[in-house]
Formats: sequence, structure tokens, C-alpha cells
Amino acid sequence: MSTTDPVVGILMGSASDAPTMYRAADTLEGLGIGYEMKVASAHRTPQRVREYCETAPGRGLKVIIAAAGMSAHLAGVVAALTHLPVLGVPMEGKLAGGLDALLSMCNMPRGIPVATMSMGSHGAVNAALFAAAILALEDDAVRQRLLAYRQQQSEQTEEQVPPR
Amino acid sequence: MSTTDPVVGILMGSASDAPTMYRAADTLEGLGIGYEMKVASAHRTPQRVREYCETAPGRGLKVIIAAAGMSAHLAGVVAALTHLPVLGVPMEGKLAGGLDALLSMCNMPRGIPVATMSMGSHGAVNAALFAAAILALEDDAVRQRLLAYRQQQSEQTEEQVPPR
Amino acid sequence: MSTTDPVVGILMGSASDAPTMYRAADTLEGLGIGYEMKVASAHRTPQRVREYCETAPGRGLKVIIAAAGMSAHLAGVVAALTHLPVLGVPMEGKLAGGLDALLSMCNMPRGIPVATMSMGSHGAVNAALFAAAILALEDDAVRQRLLAYRQQQSEQTEEQVPPR
Amino acid sequence: MSTTDPVVGILMGSASDAPTMYRAADTLEGLGIGYEMKVASAHRTPQRVREYCETAPGRGLKVIIAAAGMSAHLAGVVAALTHLPVLGVPMEGKLAGGLDALLSMCNMPRGIPVATMSMGSHGAVNAALFAAAILALEDDAVRQRLLAYRQQQSEQTEEQVPPR
Amino acid sequence: MSTTDPVVGILMGSASDAPTMYRAADTLEGLGIGYEMKVASAHRTPQRVREYCETAPGRGLKVIIAAAGMSAHLAGVVAALTHLPVLGVPMEGKLAGGLDALLSMCNMPRGIPVATMSMGSHGAVNAALFAAAILALEDDAVRQRLLAYRQQQSEQTEEQVPPR
Amino acid sequence: MSTTDPVVGILMGSASDAPTMYRAADTLEGLGIGYEMKVASAHRTPQRVREYCETAPGRGLKVIIAAAGMSAHLAGVVAALTHLPVLGVPMEGKLAGGLDALLSMCNMPRGIPVATMSMGSHGAVNAALFAAAILALEDDAVRQRLLAYRQQQSEQTEEQVPPR
Amino acid sequence: MSTTDPVVGILMGSASDAPTMYRAADTLEGLGIGYEMKVASAHRTPQRVREYCETAPGRGLKVIIAAAGMSAHLAGVVAALTHLPVLGVPMEGKLAGGLDALLSMCNMPRGIPVATMSMGSHGAVNAALFAAAILALEDDAVRQRLLAYRQQQSEQTEEQVPPR
Amino acid sequence: MSTTDPVVGILMGSASDAPTMYRAADTLEGLGIGYEMKVASAHRTPQRVREYCETAPGRGLKVIIAAAGMSAHLAGVVAALTHLPVLGVPMEGKLAGGLDALLSMCNMPRGIPVATMSMGSHGAVNAALFAAAILALEDDAVRQRLLAYRQQQSEQTEEQVPPR
Repeated sequence: MSTTDPVVGILMGSASDAPTMYRAADTLEGLGIGYEMKVASAHRTPQRVREYCETAPGRGLKVIIAAAGMSAHLAGVVAALTHLPVLGVPMEGKLAGGLDALLSMCNMPRGIPVATMSMGSHGAVNAALFAAAILALEDDAVRQRLLAYRQQQSEQTEEQVPPR
Repeated sequence: MSTTDPVVGILMGSASDAPTMYRAADTLEGLGIGYEMKVASAHRTPQRVREYCETAPGRGLKVIIAAAGMSAHLAGVVAALTHLPVLGVPMEGKLAGGLDALLSMCNMPRGIPVATMSMGSHGAVNAALFAAAILALEDDAVRQRLLAYRQQQSEQTEEQVPPR
Repeated sequence: MSTTDPVVGILMGSASDAPTMYRAADTLEGLGIGYEMKVASAHRTPQRVREYCETAPGRGLKVIIAAAGMSAHLAGVVAALTHLPVLGVPMEGKLAGGLDALLSMCNMPRGIPVATMSMGSHGAVNAALFAAAILALEDDAVRQRLLAYRQQQSEQTEEQVPPR
Repeated sequence: MSTTDPVVGILMGSASDAPTMYRAADTLEGLGIGYEMKVASAHRTPQRVREYCETAPGRGLKVIIAAAGMSAHLAGVVAALTHLPVLGVPMEGKLAGGLDALLSMCNMPRGIPVATMSMGSHGAVNAALFAAAILALEDDAVRQRLLAYRQQQSEQTEEQVPPR
Repeated sequence: MSTTDPVVGILMGSASDAPTMYRAADTLEGLGIGYEMKVASAHRTPQRVREYCETAPGRGLKVIIAAAGMSAHLAGVVAALTHLPVLGVPMEGKLAGGLDALLSMCNMPRGIPVATMSMGSHGAVNAALFAAAILALEDDAVRQRLLAYRQQQSEQTEEQVPPR
Repeated sequence: MSTTDPVVGILMGSASDAPTMYRAADTLEGLGIGYEMKVASAHRTPQRVREYCETAPGRGLKVIIAAAGMSAHLAGVVAALTHLPVLGVPMEGKLAGGLDALLSMCNMPRGIPVATMSMGSHGAVNAALFAAAILALEDDAVRQRLLAYRQQQSEQTEEQVPPR
Repeated sequence: MSTTDPVVGILMGSASDAPTMYRAADTLEGLGIGYEMKVASAHRTPQRVREYCETAPGRGLKVIIAAAGMSAHLAGVVAALTHLPVLGVPMEGKLAGGLDALLSMCNMPRGIPVATMSMGSHGAVNAALFAAAILALEDDAVRQRLLAYRQQQSEQTEEQVPPR
Repeated sequence: MSTTDPVVGILMGSASDAPTMYRAADTLEGLGIGYEMKVASAHRTPQRVREYCETAPGRGLKVIIAAAGMSAHLAGVVAALTHLPVLGVPMEGKLAGGLDALLSMCNMPRGIPVATMSMGSHGAVNAALFAAAILALEDDAVRQRLLAYRQQQSEQTEEQVPPR
């Protein structure tokens, strides 16, 4: 867990999503953004999800990242229970590589938005970067670190093709 | 609404699903099965969904039919909140004709099942028939009416091809 | 096989589905529900499927779980031959991970419903839980065990994220 | 109906498939091939399908064309009940234009083949032509007419682009 | 255009997207959030997109909504050129209803996130609501209006099913 | 190669399809049907494909099985060049498991039919069985062997579920 | 037809593709590039396709645009018969809007490339522009006109959103 | 790198695409065509992509091959910035094997074409061959080598099926 007070909550529908979502945690940590990680299933522990959402603003959370696979309802359920921005990360899976989770998260009916990220570990990192972009609007230190991250990322994209 | 006490609850995520779901109501009515119909959105009215589920057994409901489109979370959310059998009807839609709703309902993770029916009006009728099949296990009158329905359906499938 | 009289029949289209469907059997066993398992193919042994369905009520079966892959016709064929509730479990496969089996089971025309579960082992467990939900309507012991299962499942969903 | 003895049976799962399948009938008629058309549903009238298949060889049928939509099981069920060649025509539909019917027909497990044609009216015509190709192996008159049909088809494909 | 200073920029890849994206504008207007709307294509006017992104922070923009169809690259291109949060709205289209635009927007490689919304007009409204959720983190007036919007939305979801 | 005169030609678009298509050869051999196997690509060796088709009837071939993957054009190209029945076997592949090959083969425009079989080794066996069904119409010995094959297949489908 | 000598050949598999492909013709005409249009089906007139390809270089063609729908084999067949660059335009259709044609064209096995354009009229225009880009490499007049077309296209993309 | 002056530029969105794209390089080398390879991401290094495109004609490039995966925007972004012919190679990936990259590249809106090749290594080779076909229009030596390549490819497609 991060040492600063958490402003980003990372929820995942199953403990098996943890290896993927540690990528989000690491990215937030690198940007000096406090976070917390929990497992809470929209289906197996709906009460826990509800309590999490209801107490989130009071605990200082500003953004919630929700990761789930298959009939990935977690992000939508969270978005229904909070007015905080909710970022969804669809987990890879067996049906067309995870098309079920992607469509289940992404195509929310009008009224309750979910911001869907890429699938799997790409999406986990991107959710952290997107949370940073939100926080950077009012936090100059985060903005500086995000700009540095992006700058470094550009520079580290080697122009030369690696040898065989 | 039916005149007998409702044993089947028909929930739909949007009032726009009503024309389709009246097909379920009519089928139940034809089988002499009491039902009720309500609109409750997993996203816009999560509290109403919760109350509906928590009071369902006490009100005598035995089966819940949940219809929704797009990121169709309603059936899964209902199934998380009740131990009654939950039948899902994915609504047709614009993305590949409704593939989003079908996958969002059907591929529930282990632990909280949803019984997914066909899409649209076919699924609405089939949900009613499936509810009848459940109720018929302990209600001989329903069983007789269901068998008659199936028998009549067979007989009404004309063998002769209609003229052009 | 279970020691109590079978009330749930588990049919599978191929012996290769057995490892997956033992997950259904184990779940039923844990809930104290009697079951039987058979292999019967809609295509290679249609006569066996027919006899199975015709004798199912007389043998005391109340729910049939049908598992099949690819052009997964078994559940629909069974549903055409019995008025008992039929639960379908699409097997994973090579075409988009099993999209063929899922669509082949799920989108039954009006009149003969199949209750489609998730794909593969998730669906096998869920079919057992859904059968239990049906039986629980009239069997208080099953209801108690189902509620306990769901309660335990909630509690065993650890809130803490596993360490790396 | 054709005036020569039917050697091709055209089955369709629903009377609503008739307008499409008349395209097959017309094509057979143009080739001087006798046929019959019937409605028989794998789900609503399984007994009728069985009787049809069991009596097909005795009635002189050599090829069966089976058309169905959605969870299109008809062709597979027919193929399970006869050793005659079975041609499947998936009907167009709402889910991705009929992808459900196509996959449900086409990907039969090893042992019981279905020869899947194109979707809808293209497939209806092609099923007739494919039946002709089978019959032409031993019927010189059919072969001559099929070759003439193909020749005429080539010639009638105008090389010039139609004016706007 | 809104009368308050724009804080949300709505970019669309084609003038034909305007009817859909006015739904976003109306929603922002209802929430008292200033916005601007422009047409700029990632492909036909890349220079204009670049200038738009480079001047966006200076002009006071805090969130950019980018709508595009088909090979919908606009949102990704914008996200590459600004550190502001970028929300993508895939437009409906002919290929599976718009699956091309959805996948083209949603599955961004690690490093440059796009927050993908639902397709079409649902997504347009949701993008506005998501922008509001971001702005509400630091703007109490927006938060109050967003909460009121959500509250009203819940209340306006009629529980009673509309009559036929 | 079979010792009897070949009546079935097995064409494959690439030598890498051979392991799969040997399943067709073995099945034909088991049914006492003569066959030949060749590699000929619709794209890399169109001239060879043309010569193959033009000489096929003269060499005594009655059915052609064409296997190809990806943009699987071979079966359609062959069907354009012969009036013999052409059976297509789509090879498995990386895009959704082979959806490209399946759709490329199956949805032939009106006029030139291809009889599409299942994907991969299932389809290879089924193509052989379907060829046998065609030949059995006029060859009593093949019919007897095909009926025996189907009978044996039914009997070898063990009813008992294999132990874990 | 254009008045300059044709350097681009537009082939289409069916006369019904003409309205779409006139978009390519108009675009070429606007760029001062000579072209010819013909109907030739890979399936119904394979001989005509072959002759077209064999005589194409001699007639001065430098690029061939091939349009087809469904199992769209035309572009691949043409590419097998000529070393000229072949551009494919998949036609829209009923199966998922034309996914069959797109995948059938696009995923050519190694060795014989097809340059797939967008679907339908977008692709028709783009094929013409791509042909122009090829010809512009050695024809300065075409390059000037192509640059002007692109410049004009940029300028005509109005920045202002059209009023409702 | 090739020893002749580069006329083909191979861009790839990530260094991880290099093993695949060396297949294009090898093919160009075999055809005596000069090339260069660079990594430049549409998202992480948009400035580098722009500079690459703006300097491409001046450096003598005539064709650009752009390879990318997932939301594969690189080819479209490059095509927006140059009038040179741009060939896109979608990389394989986890979502349905790479369907996201294929659709993201292929379905470009009217005005800015991308010539999409097959996925992965097949597409890498084909992009090189297609570039050769373009260059062969004005370079007789390349045409001779391309014709020889195609001839050799035909001859090396063994007609005999490899033994098991």
C-alpha cells in the first residue's frame, strides 16, 4: 500500500485479478499518488461494494478503478453507487480473449458512465495514468510528475529497432 | 396485471423494454401464472432494485425475470441479491444486434448464476415458459397448462409450407 | 454418483466434457442434491437422448443440465423432448473461445427455452447452483444449504488483495 | 410442388422461412429436379422431424435441405437421423445479421456432418445447386442442365457495368 | 455555445457526428458547464487537431471529449498530444453496428489512456456526465448539480411499466 | 494413398494443412473409398488448381474436398472451376480461432456453392463422411460401410461418464 | 469511362456493386486518372477474370481495384494472376455489416498480397486515392492533383459544427 | 539495414513488433529493395512520427509500411501526414487474436487510405511484396526479381503432401 493517503481506490472483482492490477498500483506509486486496493465482487459481495462506494468520498477517494472479467458488472455497479469518476479495466478471458468483459463494461446505458480502459495489464497502467490526469487538474505536483512520466516514456521509446 | 397473486416478477431496466416484455406477461397470463411488472435500473435506481430483491420472497415471488440491454447488468445484480432463480432476457440493440447485452448477461463468473434466454421477444416468451417449467415442478395445474401449451404449439406448427 | 436419489440429470455431449462437468457434480454434492451423470450426444446418439428425456420425470429428475460444445445442440434437443427445466452449459472451444457453442445454445427460437449458463467450468458450477435455486423453492433443506453456500462464498471472498 | 417425384426434401424450421426457401424450390424446378417442401421444427415438432427423416429414403429422397435461424439446430438434428446428405441454410437474423445461425449449423462435432451453405436467399439457391451437383453424379440429364445453368450464369454476368 | 467559459472541449471527426454530440453539449449545458464544439479530423486535418491540443490548457480546457467512427483514431491522437483527460465516444456504424470504432478507441496500448464511453448518443450523454464527475472533484457547484441530475434521473425512472 | 481408384480428391492450400487433412484420408480409407491428396494454393499456384479441376472428372473424381485457412479462397475457386460437389474445410487460425477462414468459405454468393464443414480436424473427418454420404447414394457397399460406421460411432459413445 | 487511357482497372464481382464503385471512378476522374470498369466474378466468370488479369499489363493498367462482397474472393484471385498492385474493396453486407467480406479479403496468406481498403463507398473513394498515391510516385501531374485534393479536403473540413 | 538507399520505410509502434517486421525486411532484402526500420509510436512519440513523415519524401522513401497492434492507429496517423502510399500491418493480439488492430487499421474513413495487409508475419511479408509491386511499376529490375520470387514461390509449393 502506498504511504500517502489514498485518493485512488482500486477495486477488483476477484483476487485472481491482483497480479494484473498491481500494475496500476505500481504506476500510481511511481507518480506519488496514494491508493488502496481491495477485492469486492459485484456478485458475491454486493453489500461490501455498496459500503465501499458509500464511504469512498468520506475516506478521501477521488477516483475509483474497477477491474473485472467475464460478465464484468463491477464498474457499472460502482458507478451506480457513487458520483466519483469510475474507470473500468476489463480483464482478459477465454471468450474471444475477453470481448465479453469489454462489451459488458463499455456500453453503459445513458445516465451512469464508466470510463473503459484497455484490457488487462495495458488497461491497468492506463487507468492509473488516467486517474493521474484527473488529479493533475488540481494538483500541480501530480501534473509535473505525469508530464515527466510522459516525457520519459517518449524518450525511452527507442527509435532504433532492436537487433534480432 | 394478472388477477392471481404474482409468483413471477418481471423487472426491466428501462420503460422502453416494456413492449418486448409484455410478450412475457401475455405468455404467463395464458398459463394462468400470476406476475407483476416493474421498471428498475441497475444503474439509475440501484436502491429500488435492492428493495425489490429483498422483499421478493416475502411478497410470494418464486422466479424473477430481468430484462436489460447494452451493458445489461440488471440480471446479474438481481441474482447477487436474491437466492430465487433469475432469468435474464438480453434486449436487442445496435452493437451487432445486441451481442453486448447477451455477453454481459450470459457469462457470469462462478457463484451467482443467471439463466440467460434468447434475445428480445423470443427470449421474453421463453422466459415465461421457463418460469412455468420451474413452477410446474410443484404445481400440477401449471404443469397441465404448460403441457397443453407445448402440445398446441406442436400442432399449430403447420407442416404445409404457406403459399407465396 | 451421489447417494441420494438423483433429482438433477447431468448430460454431456462427449466424454471429454466430463472434467468440466464434475464441477457441477461436486457442487450438487456439496448441497446435498442427488444427481446422475451420463454421456449422450444429440448427434451421435439421438435415440439415447430421446429415451433419457422420456424417462426423466419417471426416474424422479426435476432439472436437466446439458453440456455441449461447438454446434452445441444438446440442450435444445433435450428441451424439445421434456417439459422439465433445461440448463445449458456451453463448452469452451477453439472458435473465439467457444462463441459458437454459446450462440448455438443461447438464442433458441420462441417456444422451447434453454437457460444458458456461463461457459465452461464457471457455467458448470452455476448450473448446479441454479438447479439448487429451483429445488430450493419447495425444499427447505436445500434452501438452507444454498443460503449457507452463498453466505460462505461472500465471506470467503477475501477483502484483502493477495500479496505478490 | 414439382411434378416429378421428389428427390430433394426442403425442410424449414418455421413457416416464416418459406419466402427464402422458395428460392431453392424455384432453382430445383428450373433444373428439372423433383422436390417437396415441409415445415418441421427441431424444437417444436421433434417427432415430425424424426418421422420425416426415417421415411425419407423410402420416399425416394436423396438429399435433404434444412433451413433454420437463431439457434439453428434443425440441420444437425436431421443429420443425426439420416445418412442422406444434409445441406444446411442458415437464415438471416438480428444477432450480427445471423451469425448465431451460421455458427450453430456450421461447426458440427466430428461424426455427423452438415454441409453449410451461405446465409439466406443466396444459400437457398446454392443448396439447390449443390443438390443438383450431387444428383448429377449419376443422372446425366441433371448434369446437362446444371452445366447449362452454370454456362448461362456465366454468360448472363454482363461484363459491362450498368449505367448509373 | 455555452455562455460560461468553456472547460470541456468537444471534438468530433466529422460534421456528421454533430447531431449525436449535441447530446453531450445539452447535458453539459444542463449542468452549467461551459464547453466548446469543433470538428477536427485525425486524418483529414491532423494539423488542426495538434493545434487544438496544444492550445487547450491555455484556453482553460480541463477535459476533452473526442468522437469518431470507423477507424476511430481521433481520441487516441488527441490523448497523445495532451495530458488532459480524454474521453472517447465511438460513433455507430455499419460494421457490426460500430464495433470497429469501439475497438479502435478502447484498446489503447499502455502509456496513453483513452476513457471510452458507450457508443453513439448514450456515450455522448455519458461523456458529459463523466466530465462533470471530474470537474465536480474541485467544483462544488458542479457537484451539487451532478448530484441533483442523478437524483432526478433516479426519480424519473418510473417504477410503473407504461401501458401498451 | 489409397489402393482403390480415387473418387475423392483432397486438396489443401498449404502443406501445413496435411496433418489435419490426414484425418479425412484415414476416414475415407476406413470406409473403403479411394482418394488422392494434393497441395495446391488458390493464390500461389492458381494454374495448378485450374488443371486439377479441369482434369478431375476425367480422372474419375466425384467429390473434391478443399481445405484452406485465413482468406480461405481455395474451395470457392475450385467450385468455380468444376461442377463436382466441393466440400470446404476451414483451417483453424489465429484470428478468433479461424473465423476468417470460416466466413471466407461459407458465405459464397449465389450461383457457385461450397459445402462448408466444421473447422479443423472435426471438419476433415466430417468432409470424408459427407463425401461418403454422397457416394452412398449410388454405391451400396459404401452405404453399408457408412451405416456401420455410424452405428459403431453410436455404440462407442459410452453412456457412462469416465472416472476422474 | 474516362477519356484518358486507362491505367486503373476497376473490377467488381457483381453489377450490384456498381453504384458503390462509381465513387471510385468519380474520384479517379477528378484526379485526371484514366480508368476502366468491368464486372467479372471470381466464381461465375473465372475465365473472364483470368483473361482480364493476363491482358492487364499489356493494356497499360498499372493498378487493379477489385470489389466484392460476402465470400469476397475476387481480389485474392486477381492478385494471384497478376503482379500489379491489387486493391480490395469489401462490400457491405448482411453478416455483421460485411465482416465476412472484410475478413475474406484482408487476411491473405503469405505470398500474394491484397491491399484492403475500408468497406463500401468509403473504401471505393480510398482505393482511388491510394491508386493515385501509387501513380503519383512517377507522375508529377497526378502528384500535384493528389496534393491539391488532400489540401482541399483539409480546408473543406469545416471547423465549425453545423447548426442543428 | 540494407546497403542500397532506402526506398521503403518500415515503422513499427513498439520494439516488440520487431521480430515480426524483420520478415518484411528480409523479403525486401531478397528483392534487392533498400529499406530502413524505425520504432515510432503514434501515441508515445507523435512528434517523431510527424518528423518521420515530413522528411520521408526528401529522404527518398516511396512507400511506408506501418505496423501496430491493439488500437493500431499508427498507419492511419502516418497516412494523414504523407501522400506516399501507406501499408498497414496489424499485429496479432489477445482480443480475438488481433481483431482490434485489424479493424482499427482497415476501416479508415473516406479521404485518407491505408492499405491493410494480413495480420502478423503473413502481413509483414505481404507488405514487402506489395511495396515491391508498387516499385516494380517503374523499376524493371525490381519487377524481374518480383516475378522470379512469385515464380519460385509457385514452384516451391510442393504438389505432393508431406508424409506424416
